[in-house]
Amino acid sequence: MTNSTTHWTTLYKNINIATMTEASNSYGIINQGALAIATGKIAWLGKESDLPYFDENTVEVIDGNNQWLTPGLIDCHTHIIYGGNRANEFELRLQGASYEEIANNGGGIVSTVNATRQASENELFNSALKRLTAMQQQGLTTVEIKSGYGLDLNTEIKMLKVATKLSEKLAITVKRTFLGAHALPIEFKNNANGYIDLVVNEMLPQICAQKLADSVDVFCEGIGFNLAQTERVFKAAKRHNLPIKVHAEQLSDLGASELAAQYQALSSEHLEFLSEKGIKAMAQADMTAVLLPGAFYFLRETKLPPIEQLRKNNVAMAIASDANPGSSPIHSIQLMLNMACTLFRLTPIEALAGITCNAAKALGIDNHTGMLKVGFDADLALWDISQPAELCYQFGVNPLTTLIKQGKSIL
Amino acid sequence: MTNSTTHWTTLYKNINIATMTEASNSYGIINQGALAIATGKIAWLGKESDLPYFDENTVEVIDGNNQWLTPGLIDCHTHIIYGGNRANEFELRLQGASYEEIANNGGGIVSTVNATRQASENELFNSALKRLTAMQQQGLTTVEIKSGYGLDLNTEIKMLKVATKLSEKLAITVKRTFLGAHALPIEFKNNANGYIDLVVNEMLPQICAQKLADSVDVFCEGIGFNLAQTERVFKAAKRHNLPIKVHAEQLSDLGASELAAQYQALSSEHLEFLSEKGIKAMAQADMTAVLLPGAFYFLRETKLPPIEQLRKNNVAMAIASDANPGSSPIHSIQLMLNMACTLFRLTPIEALAGITCNAAKALGIDNHTGMLKVGFDADLALWDISQPAELCYQFGVNPLTTLIKQGKSIL
Repeated sequence: MTNSTTHWTTLYKNINIATMTEASNSYGIINQGALAIATGKIAWLGKESDLPYFDENTVEVIDGNNQWLTPGLIDCHTHIIYGGNRANEFELRLQGASYEEIANNGGGIVSTVNATRQASENELFNSALKRLTAMQQQGLTTVEIKSGYGLDLNTEIKMLKVATKLSEKLAITVKRTFLGAHALPIEFKNNANGYIDLVVNEMLPQICAQKLADSVDVFCEGIGFNLAQTERVFKAAKRHNLPIKVHAEQLSDLGASELAAQYQALSSEHLEFLSEKGIKAMAQADMTAVLLPGAFYFLRETKLPPIEQLRKNNVAMAIASDANPGSSPIHSIQLMLNMACTLFRLTPIEALAGITCNAAKALGIDNHTGMLKVGFDADLALWDISQPAELCYQFGVNPLTTLIKQGKSIL
Repeated sequence: MTNSTTHWTTLYKNINIATMTEASNSYGIINQGALAIATGKIAWLGKESDLPYFDENTVEVIDGNNQWLTPGLIDCHTHIIYGGNRANEFELRLQGASYEEIANNGGGIVSTVNATRQASENELFNSALKRLTAMQQQGLTTVEIKSGYGLDLNTEIKMLKVATKLSEKLAITVKRTFLGAHALPIEFKNNANGYIDLVVNEMLPQICAQKLADSVDVFCEGIGFNLAQTERVFKAAKRHNLPIKVHAEQLSDLGASELAAQYQALSSEHLEFLSEKGIKAMAQADMTAVLLPGAFYFLRETKLPPIEQLRKNNVAMAIASDANPGSSPIHSIQLMLNMACTLFRLTPIEALAGITCNAAKALGIDNHTGMLKVGFDADLALWDISQPAELCYQFGVNPLTTLIKQGKSIL
């Protein structure tokens, strides 16, 4: 990267910029701004009146029509690769069926695991492609996708391969998370420790050997895995030099966030039942709190995550869709912005930081994306709005007019 | 309409049909079905195996690929024509500003009234066109739009003219509702009766003379108009032979639904605080209960409308977006399906009936649209789903593949 303008390929002029370089403190606004791209990176940004000399014959100059430019959006917690769907179970429950009747009708995560195991790699790819395409059209340039509906080696690998292919197909960065410890497969009924053996001794080594995962996640919960089992997975992740994430404190406070902090995890996610102690531990370890308003909404949770204490302790807050067939069949990061404000009372600045700079931090990629900064990836979204808060306030009319991934126009 | 197949222009084959002809009792499913269109109406529908002879040389035969066909969707309560937006107020509130501070910053409905008065007809048309286009892409073939941000004769007329033009532009049926009695304009501060004089003596006669309204609505509420004022508007509507609708029992129980029943109103809308007495009166008068989950969500209301009692009393329930800049800046009928189920616990059958047959009933047009039935308008939506409940269960991936308005393909 050089300061010279000779490598510039594209220049956006007549734009308002929300750089998101100040975390949740401000949008980092530059009015009447301009931004130049060189070799897929941001080469210059600032006031249009401060533009250095450049050769108009070699740079494509684009008039932004006074629209708003933000970092490309990041959905840092999703489960969008799965077989089947759970519409049937959704309908049965609303018709008054009991959980037992639903289980007898093959409902619950077991049904998704079965359908995912039965689906071919191609089928999984095609159904996830529809979802990710819709999500990209909302402004995403990066998405995290978890495995965890296979719960056996072959299917977990199949899911992670699909995640890799989606990235290639759609010009979107996909960060792949191995979530073998998502639920207990029926083959291991009453033998959770035996399943964790499989996860740490067979699955993780083979997945690492094939370079299929960028991080490791565990669902630590009464209906998931206990603290000791969670720690075994964390230790294995450390041995393989993979960053750690955790589904924690969603339905009860097991102290998984504190444990994750001891392992320098990137993030702890859900967090409705997070304790003061957990918050302090996360702050100390500079972890990101990933909040999931879609699951909160869909499960009709009433306990809010401890937003005010997270704020006071300067824990970075990210927002994600948690898109999954069971507890958040909602594939819209724009809706998450509105729900983060409406349900969790985040400010629009916090919500937007939650799907840009703080989402990048939750994925450990905040050194090159999630903010508009010289040298960062030219991952950009251009919006037909009058102020950034409009992205959070209104929903249903997609104001995205241009999406740029590493300098290339995608939409 | 003749039973002959000689007038058929288009035939959809290889489709599953949800006729919605049985209100909330069932989807009215025809598997392996077919549907024929002649002169913009449904000419035949049934099992493909029961198709009568037709001339394949004169009929366009379309393979529906085993997708699902439903009536085109109907959003029967919206306020999508307005100037400005309230993103600023939304942000201030989340930053902790008091209502007084927001009012001092020009917030509240007053700000929308000012912006709507100041906007040209063209500006109002263009901003509403964006909203309605996004809504149509979700499957709408009919929408209701209310005036009520002018609160003076000229602006109310301007809004209703824009509504008329939107219908012509988008090939969507727009039912226009005069809602002069939406709020008290500042010119009439402390003189609500004087404003009602204007509404009934000047606005309504002139709007009727120009044939700009299809129905009349009133916001009966502590912050709107009282029962006596509401009744004056109802009487005036009756004199002008316009059907009546009412915003009622949203924040308190004033008995507006009972009053509306006495005037054979089409519908009463919002209804969180509706009493048993109001329900009985609505049932007696065959009124439709229009439920608005978007406003419930956005205002963080906790009191649910009395769904179970409405069911028991066989009051037809419709669902609508209430799309408006203050209490539901949400332009998505598909999201309303999910919210009706998730927040109000409607079954998917009830939710889908709520935006098809029952929404048509709420607009008084259920004799020709909202169901798939021979002789009805060929207003159709084709969906890439495996079962109707999917329309309610998942959100974010738009499964609409074809939209037909009066026999013509729109999308």
